Amino acid sequence: MLKKQQRLSLLASAMLATAAGSVIASDTTAAKGTVADWLAQSSATDWRELDADNTLYLELPGGRVIIELASGFAPKHISNIKALVREGFYQNIPIVRMQDNYVVQWNEPDGATPKTLTQAKRSIAAEFSVKLPANFAFTPLSDHDGYAPQTGHVNGFAMAMDPASNSGWLTHCYGAVGIARGNETDSGSGTSMYVVTGHAPRHLDRNITLVGTVRQGMELLSTLPRGQGAMGFYASADQYTVIKDISLAADLPATHRTPLQVLRTDTATFKGVVEAQRNRGGEWYQHPAGYIEVCNVRVPVRDTPQQSQ
Amino acid sequence: MLKKQQRLSLLASAMLATAAGSVIASDTTAAKGTVADWLAQSSATDWRELDADNTLYLELPGGRVIIELASGFAPKHISNIKALVREGFYQNIPIVRMQDNYVVQWNEPDGATPKTLTQAKRSIAAEFSVKLPANFAFTPLSDHDGYAPQTGHVNGFAMAMDPASNSGWLTHCYGAVGIARGNETDSGSGTSMYVVTGHAPRHLDRNITLVGTVRQGMELLSTLPRGQGAMGFYASADQYTVIKDISLAADLPATHRTPLQVLRTDTATFKGVVEAQRNRGGEWYQHPAGYIEVCNVRVPVRDTPQQSQ
Repeated sequence: MLKKQQRLSLLASAMLATAAGSVIASDTTAAKGTVADWLAQSSATDWRELDADNTLYLELPGGRVIIELASGFAPKHISNIKALVREGFYQNIPIVRMQDNYVVQWNEPDGATPKTLTQAKRSIAAEFSVKLPANFAFTPLSDHDGYAPQTGHVNGFAMAMDPASNSGWLTHCYGAVGIARGNETDSGSGTSMYVVTGHAPRHLDRNITLVGTVRQGMELLSTLPRGQGAMGFYASADQYTVIKDISLAADLPATHRTPLQVLRTDTATFKGVVEAQRNRGGEWYQHPAGYIEVCNVRVPVRDTPQQSQ
Repeated sequence: MLKKQQRLSLLASAMLATAAGSVIASDTTAAKGTVADWLAQSSATDWRELDADNTLYLELPGGRVIIELASGFAPKHISNIKALVREGFYQNIPIVRMQDNYVVQWNEPDGATPKTLTQAKRSIAAEFSVKLPANFAFTPLSDHDGYAPQTGHVNGFAMAMDPASNSGWLTHCYGAVGIARGNETDSGSGTSMYVVTGHAPRHLDRNITLVGTVRQGMELLSTLPRGQGAMGFYASADQYTVIKDISLAADLPATHRTPLQVLRTDTATFKGVVEAQRNRGGEWYQHPAGYIEVCNVRVPVRDTPQQSQ
């Protein structure tokens, strides 16, 4: 029998946890088991490497934030971001804003002489949504969404779509990465970018161009001091965190890359993971939700397994 | 005409902002104007002081976190929290867990001798939902919710309800404060508590007892270093942030209280604020959402205005 003290410790550790083991019946027949069960049973082909041609490394003093770009959704902006990367634009660009429960943002500091660009542009036409191609590997969620006719995933990215117009867009979930803009819809280009660090501000969907999502290192952004100015802007430059640089994984030698995999979202394993989050089993849950909202689906990421010899 | 540099600065500042001024047509006739417009036009009676008998001050090294308790939803747990406060239980209780995009949690540290309690208890029957009284001042949202039959607000708190059973519960929105528990539903009492610091984990609703919400100081919790152990627990005690104490506002002299007001949620002003968030106007928004999810409703809080002489 556990001593009281040990029991208390276990209670604390079990809090909010899903114990592996018994599974509460699902409202669908698609899946049984916990997320951990599904991942333990996954096969190598359920995972893909991050796309080096569309992976950004944002280098902060505290470490590396890894962003994967969803090239199908904002091709013009993503092309411009790569141009900015290759011109060295992001070297020493500061984080100028951190608004609690909302966004972190970087751009050239107030009062500094704007950097000279060669190929990259400072204005790109909005890519708030795109026409979906015919061969689109969409994995829909069966769950009703208030902000869009349909939500789901493609290639590891949360998205929404409107079947009536066959248009799709990335959703403003935690970790979503976007292009800051002013009132003019073409006033963004990637010289100023933001990451969602709070409860999903889905009202921004289709109002601003999203380009991808953070795959690793969110805590390097989410722990930054909150700006005390209006809208979370820092009141003075000495409060900035300076980005050393943003680089493209494909431009670096393999030894300088971070090998990461994301679960393929067009697999039975992913459907199982979603169902395990929709109706959580184990001994702790008393009331499975029977529902999941797109931004509560956590798309699994893992270190690339070492090759066996 | 603005110089390019100034224009860039304005673009950065305007990003994501709702400019006061022109308002995009609403899908209801209830409200016009921005949140700022509505608050500027509010009357003194639209606001109430925080309830000192149900306001906790969580004193961290960095400052004060202010929690308001929703006494109607978890009366037994709230009574026990007050007993714990008055026995000095929370003095030097550490924050033992900070899981990114999820929760921060405090309780007695692993390995420490549990504190001796006199009146307070270590086990309280679950209060996952309550029967709603007849005179319940509920302000429903018209918007569909995936996790509950109905959502809305009461007395400044986000909640959900089931009209069929006339039961209600607080929702796990950003800043929600709850009672950690183990697998047994009566294993929580307030000796261990948590605050939601990420995207709303609504699947916890009706699985764990919520007691209130943070009204001020969230950034003192949300910026804490993330725990590197399983589920965000800190790997060692030297990573803890120690809570100096938790006190009840009513127990302190007026000079030691923080005068705060919350917008009454049974007012026309609040309905206007909600509508302004559901269909954002101004020059920036191109696509008003026409929808708002309960955890995206920001309930306004302000410093209590100085009495005019």
